[in-house]
Formats: sequence, C-alpha cells, structure tokens
Amino acid sequence: MKLLIIGGSDAGISAALRAREIDSALSITILLKDEFPNYSICGIPFFISGETPDFRRLAHRGTDELLDAGIELKLRHQALTLDPKAKQVLVCGPEGRAEQIPYDRLIVATGARSILPPITGLQNQGVFTLRWTGEALELSCFLMERKPRRATVIGAGYLGLEMADALTRLGIEVILIQRSANVLKTFDSELSILIKAELERNGVRVLTGRHPELIEKNGDQLRVHGSGDLISEADFILVATGAVPQSELAIEAGAVTGINGALKVDRHMRTNLSDVWSAGDCVETWHRLLKANTYLPLGTTAHKQGRIAGESAAGGRAVFSGSLGTQVVKVFNLVAARTGLRDREALEAGFKPITVEHESWDHKPYYPGASKLIIRLTGDRESGQLLGAQILGAYGVEVSKRLDVFAAALYSGLKVDNLLEMDLSYTPPLSNPWDPVQTAAQHWVSSLALSNEQSMK
Amino acid sequence: MKLLIIGGSDAGISAALRAREIDSALSITILLKDEFPNYSICGIPFFISGETPDFRRLAHRGTDELLDAGIELKLRHQALTLDPKAKQVLVCGPEGRAEQIPYDRLIVATGARSILPPITGLQNQGVFTLRWTGEALELSCFLMERKPRRATVIGAGYLGLEMADALTRLGIEVILIQRSANVLKTFDSELSILIKAELERNGVRVLTGRHPELIEKNGDQLRVHGSGDLISEADFILVATGAVPQSELAIEAGAVTGINGALKVDRHMRTNLSDVWSAGDCVETWHRLLKANTYLPLGTTAHKQGRIAGESAAGGRAVFSGSLGTQVVKVFNLVAARTGLRDREALEAGFKPITVEHESWDHKPYYPGASKLIIRLTGDRESGQLLGAQILGAYGVEVSKRLDVFAAALYSGLKVDNLLEMDLSYTPPLSNPWDPVQTAAQHWVSSLALSNEQSMK
Repeated sequence: MKLLIIGGSDAGISAALRAREIDSALSITILLKDEFPNYSICGIPFFISGETPDFRRLAHRGTDELLDAGIELKLRHQALTLDPKAKQVLVCGPEGRAEQIPYDRLIVATGARSILPPITGLQNQGVFTLRWTGEALELSCFLMERKPRRATVIGAGYLGLEMADALTRLGIEVILIQRSANVLKTFDSELSILIKAELERNGVRVLTGRHPELIEKNGDQLRVHGSGDLISEADFILVATGAVPQSELAIEAGAVTGINGALKVDRHMRTNLSDVWSAGDCVETWHRLLKANTYLPLGTTAHKQGRIAGESAAGGRAVFSGSLGTQVVKVFNLVAARTGLRDREALEAGFKPITVEHESWDHKPYYPGASKLIIRLTGDRESGQLLGAQILGAYGVEVSKRLDVFAAALYSGLKVDNLLEMDLSYTPPLSNPWDPVQTAAQHWVSSLALSNEQSMK
Repeated sequence: MKLLIIGGSDAGISAALRAREIDSALSITILLKDEFPNYSICGIPFFISGETPDFRRLAHRGTDELLDAGIELKLRHQALTLDPKAKQVLVCGPEGRAEQIPYDRLIVATGARSILPPITGLQNQGVFTLRWTGEALELSCFLMERKPRRATVIGAGYLGLEMADALTRLGIEVILIQRSANVLKTFDSELSILIKAELERNGVRVLTGRHPELIEKNGDQLRVHGSGDLISEADFILVATGAVPQSELAIEAGAVTGINGALKVDRHMRTNLSDVWSAGDCVETWHRLLKANTYLPLGTTAHKQGRIAGESAAGGRAVFSGSLGTQVVKVFNLVAARTGLRDREALEAGFKPITVEHESWDHKPYYPGASKLIIRLTGDRESGQLLGAQILGAYGVEVSKRLDVFAAALYSGLKVDNLLEMDLSYTPPLSNPWDPVQTAAQHWVSSLALSNEQSMK
C-alpha cells in the first residue's frame, strides 16, 4: 500500500514517521515543493538574527533519519493537481517534467502562506514575506549583500515581534507598524502595552493603529504611506500580517473548506475526499474548549495533527484531542505566553467569564534574581471552570512551562480552585510555596466571591 | 469564639489567615516558641550562603500584615501542656511565668525538628543542626566569629546538599557524608550519581555509604569516625539527616499518632481530640496517589494543610487534596525535581510500574543555551496511569515548572499517553514542538509496547 504525503514540513513529516511506526510495510513518499524537509520554520527569526548562524541547523532531523525510516523524499516536486477518483497527483518535478504519482492513501500537508494585505506596491523589490525556508534565505542574502540600515515591519504578531527583535540585534533600525491599537493582539491589551514598552526600550519604533496603504519606491528607499499621516521610510519592508491556508490543491479536487478557507477535517484528520487526510496549517483545528473548529496555524498543532493523520492513514484510530491555542513568544528579554480563551473569546463562546490580573514574584524575592510575573486568569463565574491564562515575565523565569500548568489544567477540564490543590514544586530560587499559578487562582476565587456579594446587594 | 494556634511557621500562619478569611469575628491567637513568625525556613541555606544577606527578609510577610488581619501573636510563648478537656494550654511566657490560655478551638502546628542520629559526641560545641531560624542565627554567628575553613556535613538530603552548596560559596571546604550509597536518595540512583558529580565538580568531597559513629573533639577540631575507615576532620559539623515530627505536646494530651510519630488527622486536618486540628510537619500527610497517609514534611504541604485546618476550625468544610511528594532542589548549577512515585515506591504500593529514562534538549538546540534534561518517567503498565516523574537539568531551563506539568497531570489522574495530547507552549528558545515532557511520555509508551511484545513471545 502506498501512502503519499504532499508537504514535508512539521505535519507531513510527523505523519510519515507515525505511519511508519504503525505499519512497517507501508510505502511512504513525501513530495516537497522546496528542498528543505522538516525545517523548523519557527526558527527562521533566529537564523536571521544570527543566533542560529547556519540555517541547516533549523532542520528538526536530518534527511538520513527520514531515509533510514524508509521514507522516500521527492524534493522540488510541486503538486499541481489532485485527482481523488483516479487516486493520483500530477506533479512538476525538478527538471520541469510533469508526472502522475498514484497513491492508495493521501495526506495533504501543504501548510500556509503569508497573507498579502491590501497594500499597493507589495510587488516592489525589497518587500519580503517570511514563512518558508526559501524566503528566509532570500532575506538573508539581501541583508548580507545590501547591509540595510532601516527596516519597516508591517504586522506586530508573533513573527513581526520576533523579527523586530532579530533585526534590532543586527543593528538595523526597525519601525513596526500595526493596524490594530495594540501589538500582539492575541493577548489582552494590558499585556500588549508592556510588550510595546519592551520593544521601545530596545529601540524599536512602534506605530499602532495605522493602516499601511501604499508602498512607494524612491531609488533604494521604500516608503510606506497610510492612515493617520503614516509615512515610514526604510531600506526594506517585511510583511508579517499572518498566514492563510495553502489549501487550493485540495479545494480544486473537491475538498470542503471552513474557517479562513482551511480544509475541513474530522478528528481523525480525514477530509471529505475518499482516502485523503490532511493536517497542519492548511486545515481547521478542533478547539478543545470551544468544542468547535478554529483556524490556529501553529507548529505544535501541526506536529500533533500530522501524527494523527499518519496514524489514521496507516489504519489506526487516533483522535485529535484539540488545541487550546497555547502560544509563547520571546521578545527581547520578555516572554509572553497564553493558553485557552481570553475574556472576550470566552464571552463570544457563551461562557460567563471573569478575568483577573495578578502580579507576583516568580520566586521568593529574598533569593537573587526574582522578577515580577503578570498573570491574567479567566474562568467561568457559574461553573468555576478554568478557561484561559496569559503570563508575561522575564526570559529565564519559567514563564513558558508555568503557563503549561494552566494548559495541563485546561486539558483536564479543571476548575480554577483545583489549581490551589495541586502539589507544585517549590524551592526559594524557583518558586513560592504557593506558585504564582496558584496565587492567581486564589485571586480569581476571591474576586468571584466579591463580585457575587456585590451582585447580591 | 477563640481560636488558638500553637506554632507560627508556615502551617500556623496559613491556618490563621484562612480562618480570618472565613470568619472575620473570630478571635485568633498564635503562640510562637521563638520570635520569628512566618519565617521561610526553606530559605535558611540562602541566608547562610550570603545570597540573602539579611535574615529578616526570610519572613514570608511582616508582622504588621498579621496584626492588621487581627491576629494576635504571642512571641516566645512555649506551650508546655495541653488539656483538651478543659480546653486550655499551659504556656511558659517570655518572663518565665506560666499561664493557662483557654481556647474554643485549637490548631497544633508545632512542626518538626532535626533528627539526632545515633552518633556519640553530638553534644560537642561546633556541632549544629539547622531547621529553625534561631539555629540559623547561631550558625551564622559561629561562621562570622570563627571563620572556619572546613566543614563536615552529615546527611545528603535536600538540606545537606543546599548547605554543601552554601558553605562552598563561603569558601569553606566541605566534606559531605551520607549513610546510603547515593546522595539525595529521594531520587533514582541514575540521577543521584549526576548530582554527586555536580557536587564534586564544585569541590565538595562526597563520601557515601559511610556511617558516622563518633564525633571527637581535638582542640578546635572535630573529627568524625565511622564505618569504612571514615575519618573526617573539620572546624564544625552540620547534622542534616532529616526531620521528625514535634508532636509530643499533642501526644501527651492523648492525640493518636501514625507514621514516624506524626499526628493522625483526617482530611479536614482534624485530630482525634475534640476541637483540635493539626497541620504541617507534625502531622501525617495524605498521599493523593497512594490514597494513604505518609510522612512528607514540606513547606508547600504545610501551607496547604494549614489553610485547610484554618478553614475547618473556622467552621468551613475544606478537604485536603493530598500531596504528591513534589520536591525540587537547586544544587550549584543543577536543578532536580520529582513528583509522584518512583518505580520502587509504586511497586510497593501495588502498582505494576515501568520506568523509562529519557534525555532531551530543553529547547531547540539551534537556539543558544540549550542543555540536556534527563527525565525519568514512571507509569503503570496495566492501566497506563502516570505514576511519577523526575527531572534533572541546569538551573535556568525551566526544570521546576516543567516538572509541574507532570504534577498537574498526576493531580488529574491522567494516563501517560494523555501527556501527548496536551497543547503545551513552544517557541525555539524555550521548548520543542513536542515538549520534553511529551517526548518522555512517547518513550514510555514505546517502551511499554516493546515490553508487551517481548512478554508475548
């Protein structure tokens, strides 16, 4: 039996490896559009910044390891059309020859691509997007060759922030433009303000609430014009306004789509096409709390979904357990992490949320190096259910895995006050007898009691 | 109504504060043997090392905060006898006057004291134990006045290791003597060996498997003799061989004891004596996995139990959720953390454990500063239930809160393979797309499958 996988990034490779574990006899082939199998695209900002000097180190694993697992890799093979009835994929190979590749089972893992926002002049030289390894190499060459002094980054999501950090490290002046009122709008504005301050402390000029409309080339310079008297001049521009599913191949073959044009899949990652599964940034994502599909293109989810798709396609019965939208980003010396639902998201989903903000030392302040963590905790006022959490703190004080205590609690459907009962680890250099996770929960419980009292008056 | 609390360390203060939250009209009095209410005794090694220069900073909160909550503190009041029928405690006050203090409800939070092992010569000057703030001040004075060059530390548990670290920081040569074959025997020997190596790398001489029998004074020098030709000479000796419950007061009043002489309490922290509750290092601890009592004197548990005792004594209905024996210790640049049951402990409790050891990078190795974590994971081969985990890694790479992901999973009674389904946070500087917690779980699942296959042959 022949399993064909289109796409060799996180989802595709995870699917291949899992399918191999399940069925050692399966023939497994992966088609890659580029020549970079299993590259960690989350690592691109660190390659650009020079923290990871050799881009080849971004590979999660070497090609050898994949070949040793009996996985065939067809590099520079672009899938053109999919015929789910004939069970074949028309491919354009590296020598420009088209060929039909048959399959018994197919996994579509074509990922996402950068959004191109409605700005005139995006086609100008010196305007970059950054999602795939090839784009990273292009930008890297440009930086080496042209030694630019000034950059405009459009979009202050994860990638925009990481790239503002990366380019600043290279000594490039960065102007960061964001349409919405806050940077990193997947976090509450109370935290976004502090992240903006961290960017500014490090020399990034942050312009929020501005809509770029036009990019004009003036000699070597690129000028961005837009709303609110926006004019920003730079040697190059990075457009980092998010990602859209790269799902056309499957759509043209009859696959049904949902949110944002992402492919609809069941929780075995099966599409509506017979013997076709799909996973990663090209599909909708089941949200464990919302109990509905969302579009959350994240590396962690791509790995998990890929694994499920691989197992399903190999005859297994795995079920995707769902995402909580858990994310973490490092921006200069700050780390911001979130999981679950924020207040507004919870409200929209029909919960009755209360959100509290709680500040506490990451560890006993009598031990050197303590710093303040800010935790925003959301729970349901009626059921007491934990709905989500956000943490902001310094790099090095266990923000990320502390957030994961919330993620683990959300996974289990716990109530906020269950957090108080957990036996979490403590030593003065690393925590408090009640971990900040727990004092935030205490704060939430008290706030709820107070709010109930007030509403009874 | 008058609530009397004997003991003003973690359990006693937590009880008082919680009782106040529940009942604002309650009269609350705490009797303290010493004059250090609410001191973090876990912080003593950092005071001795000089990392926390002012011992007063070890107070979890100031006396003012307690007084503001309407809690009366009677410092230097030693409880001598308890009469549960007459509901009064005979106390020796700071001026040497005995007085009877009546109560309606009583919480006994008398803590633990250092074990004095069967070694001849412990009464010699220059032999120290270290559990209470007063003992810390004595040792500190000795160090200042005598400027010793060499120390012998007897006992390589948490305190022994932290003190070996602390004294080394002060430029004192340390010999660490341990009866058992390994240091930190609450961890598997595979990890203990690495902790021993870290001690030795930092200049500590570690002598394991030696029984000290005699301490001999020779001028200013103290010589320890013992099994295996043990002779160790030093300017002073620290005995750090664990703690025993300080439960005599309640025992003499008729309280029933269990393991190690700790007071028996139900899960509301109620003793068998009418209107007497107890919490902290003087009581048995309900173990959430074992569903039985143990003796685990830990600060985190004392806080939790104190809170329950305070709530119960104030008329509430809280239930102690149990301990998992979660612990973490920093030794020089290493952090070792554990939660739940180790293989042998699980076996003794009737589980059918399998334990795997898994090594992985704490974060993507292409980002600077990555280091290896070692995780030992124990689960039940029949039910798949997670039973326990240990992690060893460098200080600064989120060992402690990563361990807490296991602690959260144990709290919820999850299976090992549930860990694979969790949506944990990832960015290359802080984790991997599958967190080490998850790759360890994958390793466990594969090892179980392999072991089942082999046993079927």
